[in-house]
Amino acid sequence: MNGILLLSGGLDSCVLASSLVNQGVEVVALSFLYGQRHTKEVEAADKISKALKIQHHIIDIWSVFTHTHSALTDLGVKVPEGHYEDASMRLTVVPCRNLVFASIASSMAEAMGLECVFLAVHSGDHAIYPDCRPDFIEALKHVVALSGYGKVKVCAPFIEHGMNKADIVMLGSRIGAPMGASWSCYNGRAKHCGVCGTCVERKEAFCNAGIEDPTKYEAHDAEH
Amino acid sequence: MNGILLLSGGLDSCVLASSLVNQGVEVVALSFLYGQRHTKEVEAADKISKALKIQHHIIDIWSVFTHTHSALTDLGVKVPEGHYEDASMRLTVVPCRNLVFASIASSMAEAMGLECVFLAVHSGDHAIYPDCRPDFIEALKHVVALSGYGKVKVCAPFIEHGMNKADIVMLGSRIGAPMGASWSCYNGRAKHCGVCGTCVERKEAFCNAGIEDPTKYEAHDAEH
Repeated sequence: MNGILLLSGGLDSCVLASSLVNQGVEVVALSFLYGQRHTKEVEAADKISKALKIQHHIIDIWSVFTHTHSALTDLGVKVPEGHYEDASMRLTVVPCRNLVFASIASSMAEAMGLECVFLAVHSGDHAIYPDCRPDFIEALKHVVALSGYGKVKVCAPFIEHGMNKADIVMLGSRIGAPMGASWSCYNGRAKHCGVCGTCVERKEAFCNAGIEDPTKYEAHDAEH
Repeated sequence: MNGILLLSGGLDSCVLASSLVNQGVEVVALSFLYGQRHTKEVEAADKISKALKIQHHIIDIWSVFTHTHSALTDLGVKVPEGHYEDASMRLTVVPCRNLVFASIASSMAEAMGLECVFLAVHSGDHAIYPDCRPDFIEALKHVVALSGYGKVKVCAPFIEHGMNKADIVMLGSRIGAPMGASWSCYNGRAKHCGVCGTCVERKEAFCNAGIEDPTKYEAHDAEH
């Protein structure tokens, strides 16, 4: 089995990459420069790829999201702090991002003769991100199957196994995934800020999994 | 009503753009630099946009299709001559191209607050292009609806009205679409070659519609 994995450099795709490599799947990693406010995630993706000894492609599509006023791409929009359930987290939505990324990955998989497009979305992903929900993933599988000659399949193992982020951390810990090399924070400073939505979620996942969190947080360090 | 139209610069999208403008739809045109062997189509898209006085965005995503060995993007692959039904025309397939383009257009539509993504695919489009078939368009509508907050709709009026390319030429002629400014040929020389798949189809469409063809063809000129 082989395929392209969307490797953001975050925790979920880091663990999925490790898990696939462990299962003997030939993995090609794919990351995007899409106008992020920092490149820490892509640098993390590169570290993870090196640790796992997998090919890593980085594709520049910054021009695609220039009309998007998301805190992830627009330096004029402040990264909101707090929990994902807060309304303010809508500021972190980049419209149709997973659709765009998965479409490009599908095209590349077909061109490179690979079987699968692997996505690390999971059952704990949030209602504010429509393109992380299971019904979106089902629709994506269908459209990709019809878009080419039916050779490329979309696979979202964490959704298929009903895993949430704490389950992913437990899996990562069990298989020795290089989770310390992953990057989640929406801010791009030396350490994770500890207070943006994705940092809060990262902390919770390690806490709920009962696994020691290897991440250095600004806020966390300040507390102790 | 308003929306983004995928404007390749070919005949079909030229006529759809004109038809929408005629109906009072606010149209924003979108073209891609995706590593085409020439830029004649995008230049044509620009001429058409100027003639219709519509906004025209050109997005550079050349890095997306670098692994694709299509005659449309790889100068090492000769453009096949003949009819679309020939097996050799598979060389002109760029995997998942419409999926990638429509995904990006959907993201832009959502970011720009536009309602529709207009596609000029038609019922005469060919079996060799999976992402022009009606069942692909249905799947695309569904995935785009689930990908964002349900505000953006995919519209393919030529499919919905069962129109083929000759019908499109007749419509274009009736409404005065700037069809002479459009470009179809896969080769990028001064005139249309007249013998590649898309030139053969263009000629047939005018012929079947009983409309005088404004196009200057190399092969045609040589015959007379």
